[in-house]
Amino acid sequence: MANIKRVVFFVSDSTGITAETFGHSLLTQFEHIDFDIRVLRYVDNMEKAKQACQAIENVVASEPQRPLVFSTLIDSAVRDLIAASGGVWFDLFDTFISPLQRELHQSPSHTTGRTHGVIDDSDYTARIDAINFTMANDDGISTRHYPEADIVLVGVSRTGKTPTCLYLALHYGVYAANYPLTEDDLLETRLPVGLKAYRDKLFGLTISADRLHRIRSQRRPASHYASLGQCRLEISQAEDLFHSSQIPALNTTTMSVEEIATTIMSRTGLAALSALA
Amino acid sequence: MANIKRVVFFVSDSTGITAETFGHSLLTQFEHIDFDIRVLRYVDNMEKAKQACQAIENVVASEPQRPLVFSTLIDSAVRDLIAASGGVWFDLFDTFISPLQRELHQSPSHTTGRTHGVIDDSDYTARIDAINFTMANDDGISTRHYPEADIVLVGVSRTGKTPTCLYLALHYGVYAANYPLTEDDLLETRLPVGLKAYRDKLFGLTISADRLHRIRSQRRPASHYASLGQCRLEISQAEDLFHSSQIPALNTTTMSVEEIATTIMSRTGLAALSALA
Repeated sequence: MANIKRVVFFVSDSTGITAETFGHSLLTQFEHIDFDIRVLRYVDNMEKAKQACQAIENVVASEPQRPLVFSTLIDSAVRDLIAASGGVWFDLFDTFISPLQRELHQSPSHTTGRTHGVIDDSDYTARIDAINFTMANDDGISTRHYPEADIVLVGVSRTGKTPTCLYLALHYGVYAANYPLTEDDLLETRLPVGLKAYRDKLFGLTISADRLHRIRSQRRPASHYASLGQCRLEISQAEDLFHSSQIPALNTTTMSVEEIATTIMSRTGLAALSALA
Repeated sequence: MANIKRVVFFVSDSTGITAETFGHSLLTQFEHIDFDIRVLRYVDNMEKAKQACQAIENVVASEPQRPLVFSTLIDSAVRDLIAASGGVWFDLFDTFISPLQRELHQSPSHTTGRTHGVIDDSDYTARIDAINFTMANDDGISTRHYPEADIVLVGVSRTGKTPTCLYLALHYGVYAANYPLTEDDLLETRLPVGLKAYRDKLFGLTISADRLHRIRSQRRPASHYASLGQCRLEISQAEDLFHSSQIPALNTTTMSVEEIATTIMSRTGLAALSALA
């Protein structure tokens, strides 16, 4: 049986990140529907509000089912206009702002676009520094900057080290280095010499041999590097190393980059600079 | 007058990204309160639920005001236990799941942790490829891979090109290259030769001279590079170039990385691979 289709609008006066993130979380609870998602960002004046209404009305007119509309709009004139269009309205903000207002005994500022737009110079610089650090320490060639690292991810090629490090730097301002275990490293049964001084910062990433084989095969099909046997060998050697050197490790087989990153934050107790969406 | 303090818990059975993103959006509407934010991630069994309750009760006992608790918990036993603790309860999920269920005529799966954890091999690989592309094309040294680029960000040093490119790659799977305008480039009044073939992919980033001066001063204090005069000159030359070459440009002075990235997505009509939190 084909899945049911349903158009969904995420409407925001700013980046749309909150509407997207939250709306996506809700929709994953309904597995048998193919959601056709359309993000309307920066709907911050009446002209754009009219355009958004038109987009919604076009779907109302052409699809068998009314579109769902998830809103994080703050301006009440813009919001009222779009709420009156023919979509099924879910007001993510307004639902919680009133009870919050009562609890906090304060009026909301009704300022749009502050959510992801608060700029703090020192915070901004710290985050950029973390990104630069991570990009400069992505290959394991030198460990001389590891004294500045908050964490050093260790693992064989294609276990998710680079994207995880970048996510940690970009979102949490964490100085994340990454050390790829080479075949030479793996032949030794102990920690590579260069890593010994940083044992407390090491965190291992591992993965199932099957998935590693699939990932590597997409990059270098039919290579020794991508072969299941080689993947099995490397993973087994790496896991032995994590175990014998008491390096905490995470199996990333079924995890997304943001799951790996947040799990590491949670397990290591690393402090985020401040949460970015 | 000192701001009022208030402890806030974001409680999630998974990454906590949705709770953090959405809760943060709501809280920015209340400017006169210092929120002390504590993220409890991966609260996915009764043992961890009890620990979360304890953390909340400790605040109830020690602070003059009850903590706010924002939940995206899905499991009803875990949720009921924590909801019964002494915090002020905001159930981000449950509030919308019931009306969604009625509208969609389907029961929610109640599966935890699916939100940020759906792994699709080809999507994963495409995103990693975008990150690798972006990291390899971050310096403008060679333009030979620009035929594969979705977008090429152009601007003087420290206008936000690198973090924006990484955000675009990591979150939207966009192949984003970045070309730093050098003093030599700026002395010419026309587009650098290497960029001519890619005019349709170019997007300029600019910034106020004051802010650029501050950002550069944090990196190289009292240098010619960071001087207000040099910043003014470079910005003015870059803006002239964007204008004369008809390159769309964005002033990033008051923008966060995610605002720059989403504005570029919105203005260029670039399609996201799929939205990541």
